[in-house]
Amino acid sequence: MSKITLLIHCPDTSGIIAHVTSFFYKRQGNIIYIDQYVDVENTVFFMRLECEFNSQTSIKITKDEFRETVAKQYKMSWQMYSASAKPRMAVFVSKYDHCLYDILSRYKSNELEVDIPLIISNHIDLEHVAQSFGIPFYHIPVTARNREKAAESQLALLQKEKVDFIVLARYMQIIPKSLIAAFPNRIINIHHSFLPAFAGAKPYHLAYKRGVKIIGATSHYVTEELDAGPIIEQDITRISHSHSIKDLILKGRDLEKIVLAKGIKYHIERKTLVFNNKTIVFI
Amino acid sequence: MSKITLLIHCPDTSGIIAHVTSFFYKRQGNIIYIDQYVDVENTVFFMRLECEFNSQTSIKITKDEFRETVAKQYKMSWQMYSASAKPRMAVFVSKYDHCLYDILSRYKSNELEVDIPLIISNHIDLEHVAQSFGIPFYHIPVTARNREKAAESQLALLQKEKVDFIVLARYMQIIPKSLIAAFPNRIINIHHSFLPAFAGAKPYHLAYKRGVKIIGATSHYVTEELDAGPIIEQDITRISHSHSIKDLILKGRDLEKIVLAKGIKYHIERKTLVFNNKTIVFI
Amino acid sequence: MSKITLLIHCPDTSGIIAHVTSFFYKRQGNIIYIDQYVDVENTVFFMRLECEFNSQTSIKITKDEFRETVAKQYKMSWQMYSASAKPRMAVFVSKYDHCLYDILSRYKSNELEVDIPLIISNHIDLEHVAQSFGIPFYHIPVTARNREKAAESQLALLQKEKVDFIVLARYMQIIPKSLIAAFPNRIINIHHSFLPAFAGAKPYHLAYKRGVKIIGATSHYVTEELDAGPIIEQDITRISHSHSIKDLILKGRDLEKIVLAKGIKYHIERKTLVFNNKTIVFI
Amino acid sequence: MSKITLLIHCPDTSGIIAHVTSFFYKRQGNIIYIDQYVDVENTVFFMRLECEFNSQTSIKITKDEFRETVAKQYKMSWQMYSASAKPRMAVFVSKYDHCLYDILSRYKSNELEVDIPLIISNHIDLEHVAQSFGIPFYHIPVTARNREKAAESQLALLQKEKVDFIVLARYMQIIPKSLIAAFPNRIINIHHSFLPAFAGAKPYHLAYKRGVKIIGATSHYVTEELDAGPIIEQDITRISHSHSIKDLILKGRDLEKIVLAKGIKYHIERKTLVFNNKTIVFI
Repeated sequence: MSKITLLIHCPDTSGIIAHVTSFFYKRQGNIIYIDQYVDVENTVFFMRLECEFNSQTSIKITKDEFRETVAKQYKMSWQMYSASAKPRMAVFVSKYDHCLYDILSRYKSNELEVDIPLIISNHIDLEHVAQSFGIPFYHIPVTARNREKAAESQLALLQKEKVDFIVLARYMQIIPKSLIAAFPNRIINIHHSFLPAFAGAKPYHLAYKRGVKIIGATSHYVTEELDAGPIIEQDITRISHSHSIKDLILKGRDLEKIVLAKGIKYHIERKTLVFNNKTIVFI
Repeated sequence: MSKITLLIHCPDTSGIIAHVTSFFYKRQGNIIYIDQYVDVENTVFFMRLECEFNSQTSIKITKDEFRETVAKQYKMSWQMYSASAKPRMAVFVSKYDHCLYDILSRYKSNELEVDIPLIISNHIDLEHVAQSFGIPFYHIPVTARNREKAAESQLALLQKEKVDFIVLARYMQIIPKSLIAAFPNRIINIHHSFLPAFAGAKPYHLAYKRGVKIIGATSHYVTEELDAGPIIEQDITRISHSHSIKDLILKGRDLEKIVLAKGIKYHIERKTLVFNNKTIVFI
Repeated sequence: MSKITLLIHCPDTSGIIAHVTSFFYKRQGNIIYIDQYVDVENTVFFMRLECEFNSQTSIKITKDEFRETVAKQYKMSWQMYSASAKPRMAVFVSKYDHCLYDILSRYKSNELEVDIPLIISNHIDLEHVAQSFGIPFYHIPVTARNREKAAESQLALLQKEKVDFIVLARYMQIIPKSLIAAFPNRIINIHHSFLPAFAGAKPYHLAYKRGVKIIGATSHYVTEELDAGPIIEQDITRISHSHSIKDLILKGRDLEKIVLAKGIKYHIERKTLVFNNKTIVFI
Repeated sequence: MSKITLLIHCPDTSGIIAHVTSFFYKRQGNIIYIDQYVDVENTVFFMRLECEFNSQTSIKITKDEFRETVAKQYKMSWQMYSASAKPRMAVFVSKYDHCLYDILSRYKSNELEVDIPLIISNHIDLEHVAQSFGIPFYHIPVTARNREKAAESQLALLQKEKVDFIVLARYMQIIPKSLIAAFPNRIINIHHSFLPAFAGAKPYHLAYKRGVKIIGATSHYVTEELDAGPIIEQDITRISHSHSIKDLILKGRDLEKIVLAKGIKYHIERKTLVFNNKTIVFI
């Protein structure tokens, strides 16, 4: 048995669902998941569909046929994935270890259907973590002067390892435009506030100063504007006047881990679509 | 423009979505919502669909055509509603007023698309609330001896007022079988615990005694077995050792109001299906 | 039996708790609640204490003795309340009714230990709600030109009715400085976002545009800077791409009601202290 | 500078707080945390206090003096800890690795102020995890026949390593009475439901069958009655009809990790007291 996942967006009109589902019905496919969303303001139609085939259907042929029929008819932007193709993920870290431990533990526990060919860091502090999980670790120092050079080295490694997407697991560096351009909507960052509140540096300090009663974390795709990319997932926890900045940092760690892990999972499972700097997440 | 809502369940097989969506496509309908679920264990297919028609489509004709074609082909259990038909809701209360105030406030604020032809109570305490919102109030005392008789009076009123479903807003009485049989999966109760924990009487007292750190509330359809019907919605709030039983009761009131209101809304908006004593809620 | 509540803040030093608790012990008081907090950065000590007396202790005498002994020794700012003195609350509204219904329902259900001598509005739309709960309603229109004049009329009413604090229940007007000065940290507003995100007008529209996955509400004391006063309480709810602005507004209403009600309760129960534009809330 | 933590419970009467705080004031201690709770029903007083001393105060002498004065006067049950004394924790596991990874990651990140001298398991599957974190691993197989014998071996190891308390990190075995008796209220278990709902085996299966809309996890002290010990912490997450049992198990893992970690932290930081099969948790 084989399974494909289809993501679509196109101008909204009637008949799309009927034609897409008929396409798979005629090919003996069994639709096991379908969800759709219409952006009424922009009259754009979005859809996610999972279809199982009893026989070993060729994804290449299915793609070709879909392109020439339904996709062409409705002017679709679309992606079709075989469920058997594992995405390849790179992890960028600096010195904080909690998100890295969390990601690698989930990876080892088979919770993330992903390959992790490499970890890249601007510091060597977390090399021992990479080693204890048996994952290659590359130390690429970054300074204000060598930022572009470093990005070239990173890009070379990423391409060599055929990386599909990047996770910034509390990687405390600005990502150069060249890297963002090479991975559009395929770099996931974790920011330690409920954006748009407290964008930029030291959000826990700002939250403490403002006296908020909840703190949050946000996973989002990286765009050129800092902390302004499409939000994938957010969560919060309650705090009180009695919590120090140190307490906020500690409580925030659990948020960061869970919100980043959810963002990664949704991406791996091809549940996200990006449009107008917002995500559609088909959960 | 007219709108219909369709709820389906039937044996699972391939082609259902394609045929249903084609049915509406051929009649110039525009599907604005579709969600489906497959109970894999029992191979049952469930679906909810909203469809808009530009012309004034006859719901009667659409129903007839659907019955003779797709519904027959796939042996469907199904319901089709016109969005313009407001359901009629009866509210049963005893002495607690918080859920009643909450429901009537939402009703007055046009949050609930429903008609409320009557409120029935075994006590007269809340007559003044009904009056201040301008809703007829019927006092039907219930004792251990007259329970069946009272149910007859209630049923007569409900039928006279063409009531579609009943909400028990902290109505502290057992519902007789006769009434349940007349309104199958159409009586919504609020229970003040996260069921199945603390079913039956005095759940806050039991929660206090057990020393739980969260309390909850559950809205569910009423079946013959007490507090064991299909769950529609649940929510919880955190408590600590420092909360007395009185505190739990007070904190629980907000839970009860919100969980009951959500259950009512889902029902009014035809978002719920019941199967095997569980709900499918298409949110 | 009588009960007093004491709120303190003063420069932090050792011995405060010992002296305060000894003060009440010597007067046959039984401390039933004590909580304290030290702002380490500013070395300020905060405390809340509830004390029961079996005999009918004179609050006046207790106040005088406390002032001359412990309060003087530690240079305290302090307030002492008799539990039997109900605060008097004014409610300001415009056209939205959900917060007003919620507050008045809680008041009628004896959930809020408060007197409500009047409701003030710049529109007459909600007069019928005030009437149905039997509370005097004053219509004071506000325009850009008469804002100060209107504030004078409001202030006159508030003083005549000996109002202790004001609740802005979605009152869609800027509060003039003169009114804020007359009620410092005694005007409670509900803002429909998790501040500091989306301060100012139309927060739900901004939240929709930004594509956040959670929306929130914040109750805070009003200061001259808009939506920047000390936060009392916040809460959030999850949303998804599928929610329209109208959905956000609807979902936000439950948040607004609960977050405002909690802010009011904390204030009524003398659980809040303000320092450095932040609240200490002793829950 | 040295710091002590004091936990007390005793019959409730007036003057306790005044005497305890005076005791530390006279010894130049600075109280940085105080919280108290009165169980009104049973008239029992509970208190937690943290006190800093600038000089290197002898905890032994402070204990002796406290015992002979305040503790004797008020018939207190009490424990006094030096903050510099790290507790020693044993971890029991079977085959599930997520809680183990989580605990050890927190330990490595210095989030848990604890020593972990050993991990004990009835299977060898997780030896590699223990090794990658550099912690001794002991394989003690358990069968229905050798349960008591195994407990003896476990106890010998625990005593040799001077273990203070035990964490059952999804250890799928009944704990023999002998072990519970040796560690009263010092064995922490994680149960994968919001107790008291779904005690015993396979709670996720039961939750699925009942059709609940929330699932939970509970950390509690182990007593002889299965899953009925004092609850330390609980949390929940929302589910829907669309989640399979496998989904529940996966979603539940994050709950289990966080709820267990919180239970462990509260215990390590001496924030818990047990009375009448309930916990007082001074957060």
